[in-house]
Amino acid sequence: MKKVVLGFSGGLDTSYCVKYLTEEKGYEVHSVIVNTGGFSEEELQEIERRAYNLGVKSHKTVNAIHSYYDGVIKYLIFGNVLKNNTYPLSVSAERMSQALAIAEYVKEVGADAVAHGSTGAGNDQVRFDMVFHIMIPGVEIITPIRDMKLSREEEISYLKSKGVQMNFDKAVYSINKGLWGTSVGGKETLTSNGMLPEEAWPTQLTKQGEEQVKLVFTKGELTGVNDKTFDHPSAAIQYLQTIAGPFAIGRDIHVGDTIIGIKGRVGFEAAAPMVIIKAHHALEKHVLTKWQLTWKDQLAQFYGNYMHEGQIMDPVMRDIEAFLQHTQENVTGEVYVTLMPYRFQVTGIQSPYDLMSSKFGKYGEMNSGWSGEDVRGFSKIFGNQTMIWHQVKNSI
Amino acid sequence: MKKVVLGFSGGLDTSYCVKYLTEEKGYEVHSVIVNTGGFSEEELQEIERRAYNLGVKSHKTVNAIHSYYDGVIKYLIFGNVLKNNTYPLSVSAERMSQALAIAEYVKEVGADAVAHGSTGAGNDQVRFDMVFHIMIPGVEIITPIRDMKLSREEEISYLKSKGVQMNFDKAVYSINKGLWGTSVGGKETLTSNGMLPEEAWPTQLTKQGEEQVKLVFTKGELTGVNDKTFDHPSAAIQYLQTIAGPFAIGRDIHVGDTIIGIKGRVGFEAAAPMVIIKAHHALEKHVLTKWQLTWKDQLAQFYGNYMHEGQIMDPVMRDIEAFLQHTQENVTGEVYVTLMPYRFQVTGIQSPYDLMSSKFGKYGEMNSGWSGEDVRGFSKIFGNQTMIWHQVKNSI
Amino acid sequence: MKKVVLGFSGGLDTSYCVKYLTEEKGYEVHSVIVNTGGFSEEELQEIERRAYNLGVKSHKTVNAIHSYYDGVIKYLIFGNVLKNNTYPLSVSAERMSQALAIAEYVKEVGADAVAHGSTGAGNDQVRFDMVFHIMIPGVEIITPIRDMKLSREEEISYLKSKGVQMNFDKAVYSINKGLWGTSVGGKETLTSNGMLPEEAWPTQLTKQGEEQVKLVFTKGELTGVNDKTFDHPSAAIQYLQTIAGPFAIGRDIHVGDTIIGIKGRVGFEAAAPMVIIKAHHALEKHVLTKWQLTWKDQLAQFYGNYMHEGQIMDPVMRDIEAFLQHTQENVTGEVYVTLMPYRFQVTGIQSPYDLMSSKFGKYGEMNSGWSGEDVRGFSKIFGNQTMIWHQVKNSI
Amino acid sequence: MKKVVLGFSGGLDTSYCVKYLTEEKGYEVHSVIVNTGGFSEEELQEIERRAYNLGVKSHKTVNAIHSYYDGVIKYLIFGNVLKNNTYPLSVSAERMSQALAIAEYVKEVGADAVAHGSTGAGNDQVRFDMVFHIMIPGVEIITPIRDMKLSREEEISYLKSKGVQMNFDKAVYSINKGLWGTSVGGKETLTSNGMLPEEAWPTQLTKQGEEQVKLVFTKGELTGVNDKTFDHPSAAIQYLQTIAGPFAIGRDIHVGDTIIGIKGRVGFEAAAPMVIIKAHHALEKHVLTKWQLTWKDQLAQFYGNYMHEGQIMDPVMRDIEAFLQHTQENVTGEVYVTLMPYRFQVTGIQSPYDLMSSKFGKYGEMNSGWSGEDVRGFSKIFGNQTMIWHQVKNSI
Repeated sequence: MKKVVLGFSGGLDTSYCVKYLTEEKGYEVHSVIVNTGGFSEEELQEIERRAYNLGVKSHKTVNAIHSYYDGVIKYLIFGNVLKNNTYPLSVSAERMSQALAIAEYVKEVGADAVAHGSTGAGNDQVRFDMVFHIMIPGVEIITPIRDMKLSREEEISYLKSKGVQMNFDKAVYSINKGLWGTSVGGKETLTSNGMLPEEAWPTQLTKQGEEQVKLVFTKGELTGVNDKTFDHPSAAIQYLQTIAGPFAIGRDIHVGDTIIGIKGRVGFEAAAPMVIIKAHHALEKHVLTKWQLTWKDQLAQFYGNYMHEGQIMDPVMRDIEAFLQHTQENVTGEVYVTLMPYRFQVTGIQSPYDLMSSKFGKYGEMNSGWSGEDVRGFSKIFGNQTMIWHQVKNSI
Repeated sequence: MKKVVLGFSGGLDTSYCVKYLTEEKGYEVHSVIVNTGGFSEEELQEIERRAYNLGVKSHKTVNAIHSYYDGVIKYLIFGNVLKNNTYPLSVSAERMSQALAIAEYVKEVGADAVAHGSTGAGNDQVRFDMVFHIMIPGVEIITPIRDMKLSREEEISYLKSKGVQMNFDKAVYSINKGLWGTSVGGKETLTSNGMLPEEAWPTQLTKQGEEQVKLVFTKGELTGVNDKTFDHPSAAIQYLQTIAGPFAIGRDIHVGDTIIGIKGRVGFEAAAPMVIIKAHHALEKHVLTKWQLTWKDQLAQFYGNYMHEGQIMDPVMRDIEAFLQHTQENVTGEVYVTLMPYRFQVTGIQSPYDLMSSKFGKYGEMNSGWSGEDVRGFSKIFGNQTMIWHQVKNSI
Repeated sequence: MKKVVLGFSGGLDTSYCVKYLTEEKGYEVHSVIVNTGGFSEEELQEIERRAYNLGVKSHKTVNAIHSYYDGVIKYLIFGNVLKNNTYPLSVSAERMSQALAIAEYVKEVGADAVAHGSTGAGNDQVRFDMVFHIMIPGVEIITPIRDMKLSREEEISYLKSKGVQMNFDKAVYSINKGLWGTSVGGKETLTSNGMLPEEAWPTQLTKQGEEQVKLVFTKGELTGVNDKTFDHPSAAIQYLQTIAGPFAIGRDIHVGDTIIGIKGRVGFEAAAPMVIIKAHHALEKHVLTKWQLTWKDQLAQFYGNYMHEGQIMDPVMRDIEAFLQHTQENVTGEVYVTLMPYRFQVTGIQSPYDLMSSKFGKYGEMNSGWSGEDVRGFSKIFGNQTMIWHQVKNSI
Repeated sequence: MKKVVLGFSGGLDTSYCVKYLTEEKGYEVHSVIVNTGGFSEEELQEIERRAYNLGVKSHKTVNAIHSYYDGVIKYLIFGNVLKNNTYPLSVSAERMSQALAIAEYVKEVGADAVAHGSTGAGNDQVRFDMVFHIMIPGVEIITPIRDMKLSREEEISYLKSKGVQMNFDKAVYSINKGLWGTSVGGKETLTSNGMLPEEAWPTQLTKQGEEQVKLVFTKGELTGVNDKTFDHPSAAIQYLQTIAGPFAIGRDIHVGDTIIGIKGRVGFEAAAPMVIIKAHHALEKHVLTKWQLTWKDQLAQFYGNYMHEGQIMDPVMRDIEAFLQHTQENVTGEVYVTLMPYRFQVTGIQSPYDLMSSKFGKYGEMNSGWSGEDVRGFSKIFGNQTMIWHQVKNSI
């Protein structure tokens, strides 16, 4: 009997896949769910229960929070990556981590095929397809929903015919939650104009007033929050989320280019990610040189965009990671942030590597490191070529 | 008698320069103030009065708002320029415009020298020096405050000795206001940690609740706000400022690299600029292709940084402007923004050039422009090289 | 009867297509050949004769030399584009021009379908497919050779069965000739090691000794060679080729990334293109500023790579062209080149816009534009941030 | 008695400096020469003899060939760095290495000052000044030739007055030789037009015919030439130079932007560097992915330009080196080169990491890794956004 590994979330599409692969295609189905921080223990157990009820041969839960952080999130923080200057790539990053874990599991169980529940309309199909092609070439990729262009109604009808009982109601808003943020799609995001209503956001505002929080970075990684330290930065992120989330911080709508060429729009909330990125960037502005900041920006934007497009396994990504890692050598210090309803403000930093050191001259104040004559000479030489250009131009 | 043109603001430093150049150096002083949107008619008249009282031979007010917008601000909007992802370059842009207008005036009056009141500690000295070296080479540049390393006290004492009466109190916060924002410096910005207190901000919060505003862009330029249209985009910016300013929007602290190598920190408030940039960018995300957005980002970041460093006269800036201008061909449409105390949200756009058109497939929905098979093929080819790379690697 | 437009070269693959489309598929075939400088009048007439013999309904010859230059080659020269620092993109550029002309012809004749003879193994299939998808969406694209995975033998056998008589011998080296160079493929280029033998090169060495040639550029375009001027730069290119070609200049082997992910290797000879690019670049080094050169490089490399991948219709290409065009404002002057067997040397330039003007200081000689003190000050400020970085580092 | 460390080459300028610093300024002079591969043992001994004859307190010879390669040349090879696509940065790289070694020596002897013989007209003054400011801040920098604007004649006259006997004839061509090439300046390079005559080149053509050479790279470094292996890549470079040099390969003229804004022109010969860079690049084209090649290009160009400007101590250079190093993981294999008088041709490569592997499809040949249908789908999706853009545009 041929084996297939199926990425399983417990939702309608992947439930359909279990039944279809088992009963219509005669596969032994091994379902797997990769938790990148979006599921509680209870939810994971409920998903496992559903998988077995649907008839899988085996079900596996992969806890990928650490590998997700170590393999992707770390570099998104190093690079202060916000796609189109807005979106922390919550879902894009997660899919890479999940696809890689599923590919690993395919090799482990020696499956003949791998299946995912993606439709033909989004980014995820490309991400799963590509990682599978690259990491487990030759393994057949099965995508029933995409291939048969199934509608919701057809899937429900089929499942009912097989005696499956589950909640078939469509959620008003589709939610995808993980360590690096939660995406929210709904009727407002299907058009170019319209904001999600207050009730659509999974995390509601429950704190008022101001709250100070201190983020401690060690070589670019979040290792402490206030006076707590953590075994792994992913735990620090989760802890910060419990503090910042109730302020309903980090909500926005992202409009972006999908891999398949159309424009897509999606809401997201990402309190901890937004606070971390802005705090990390603030620290970097104090400890990195001008050209470190400039090149980090360029490389990190490419890194984010290319990962968004599913290309995390291109070796250029490892090269860029080596660059980003090296830039973090001095990104150590504390960043102070004020949290408020719906917004936050980075108020300052403290670092032994701070280049804004009064020992070497204060901006706008008298200083001893150089003289006015030095700057006069600098200005002359710095503009010398452009002066010559204009002189030559004027002389014609 | 030798003539000098002096950039004059009516403050302590440039008042000192008038007296010093006239009485110690024997120059005929022609003072000039270039208004880039920060001064009212009354203020300009008061400055003129002061200039004559100090003994200038002539005083000129240059209204540079239109040329400032046309020469610089327009391109900062086209490029969505925020230095270090934060600062709209309010002061940097203004200095370029002022230096160029002063250089023009030097040629007009046929002056032998040009003077500015910069100290030896900031960016402005380089900006003025460079533009003068480039545009009026051979004209002597005189910078008394920088050259003599004068302290405030020495300047006051000299002016008093000359019988000058003016307000010698030092403002608690130094303010620089113009069309593209207001900078605020104070004791909090001289260190790496500390936020400006509420009272330091020139524009106080005076509106509550939410207010909807519609921005109308035509080929990238703000031509309308709500149902008003304007003769010149600078008027639209000023009108939007009257609407958004009272929400205390666009306040932040910028930490950046000065031209002279030290780090500098400055507060700023820029309600209209921040709303315009975010709205313009949102529209672009809908009407430009992926690579248009990518290259605009790279070129615009360089453009902003290089202008910040005083290099606006390098011909590469004209080349980049030609690029940016060309990208704006389809950046026409309306952007909807909700203003709230201290923050705002872009809620959507409407444009005939919107690429997020349901005619060509909706993100996450079924569509007719291509098939699942097409995407399957795409994914295979798109990841082909990386697949080969891993296969080759594994085979060794 | 349904109409199909077929790109027709007179070779085996497209001869097959005529018969197949006519007799098996019942199409009215309208063949078209787009001359981008590789065909003589006699060759074009012979191809037309063949087309009618094979049974096309109509045959059209498009002379695209001017539009090819104006639409593509001009910008490759402006950008000094050499893919991977080697290859002038001879074939890539040509395909774009041909695909666009064919798409135009499809609209003119109102065809239902468009056909090309590409196999499934190279770049051209993607280039033709993409331009057709973009410019004539909805028109069916027919690719018999690719779809049926036909071998040479199968095609010959079919054509013979239809009574077609033509030279069925396979050329030892496949040649593709056009205005911007000639590619040469053979058994040596199918592996990673091996140079094409002397006899494989279409243009043999027939000149000896040295020959001086003067290239005259006007705003970046080649308008004169020695004392001849030309109506259109494409004629100047062709004339220069008659001078430089017999020196067997510009031969090399290019290894590059195909659009479909595999590496490809191909020989090429491009005497005029290589001389023009190096001469144009030399002139630019004298008349452009440092940052103009830097940004031109970056944008031009992307432009070349992206065009190579068939993406010439992305509007970002028009934006980059606007940039490149603007940079050429001062690229006017003469460039002197010495031609020798197999190689050439640019020996100097003369231009009114030359920034290497002795009026503003000679490199390595005493000068009057600035003082040693100016440079001393410059060096101090230019290295200031890095000095602070090391001081801070050492103090920890 | 105050100590000064003087960079000493034995030439006129630095000979002047010894006498001037000793006799006019009362310094104890410690001369130092840093050999980066341009001097023989005999030359170094002769320079030492001269130093003591001129009256230095001590003289030191630093053999910096290994550190020069390890610190700079290695990365120029990794990055295939040719400034303005021409010049291997022979002199620029050398100066960095020398300045750093001199700064180290200043710390070792505890000197109060450091002196160099640069004039006020070139790049070297900035490079020495900057490295000294950064690495030994506070140590006085003395530049007699620059500060006193001394002419050759004044220097000679002074030295004669002090009884110094040396060859005071000016060489017709000024030569600077090192591991990474030799620069040649003369009257032809002071203008924009003119090639150095044959006799000006230090290495004359003494080989005829063709010679095959095999370069062996290990992780990007040249570890073998033909069947010889070497302890250190610098020895491999020197060995290759003995083979390639007599072919008079690698001669050209570089026109570039000096740090001080003027254009400069200089001849150079660099047989081994040019062969190595082209061979290394050829190998990379076979083993790196498209985006690795693209980003290497961008970063390496910046690296070269910024080093040329004396900025090697900016920490961003270490970050870029980390990137470049990481890209070399698979750059292992053999490259075959044919040497001929005045030119050479890379003819192929062999590497276990070669991505042009027939296992995964041959360019232009039938293949099994994907189907024509896959490419058809790819083309559709790859051009999807541009198709939509044109559709939207046409619909208005």
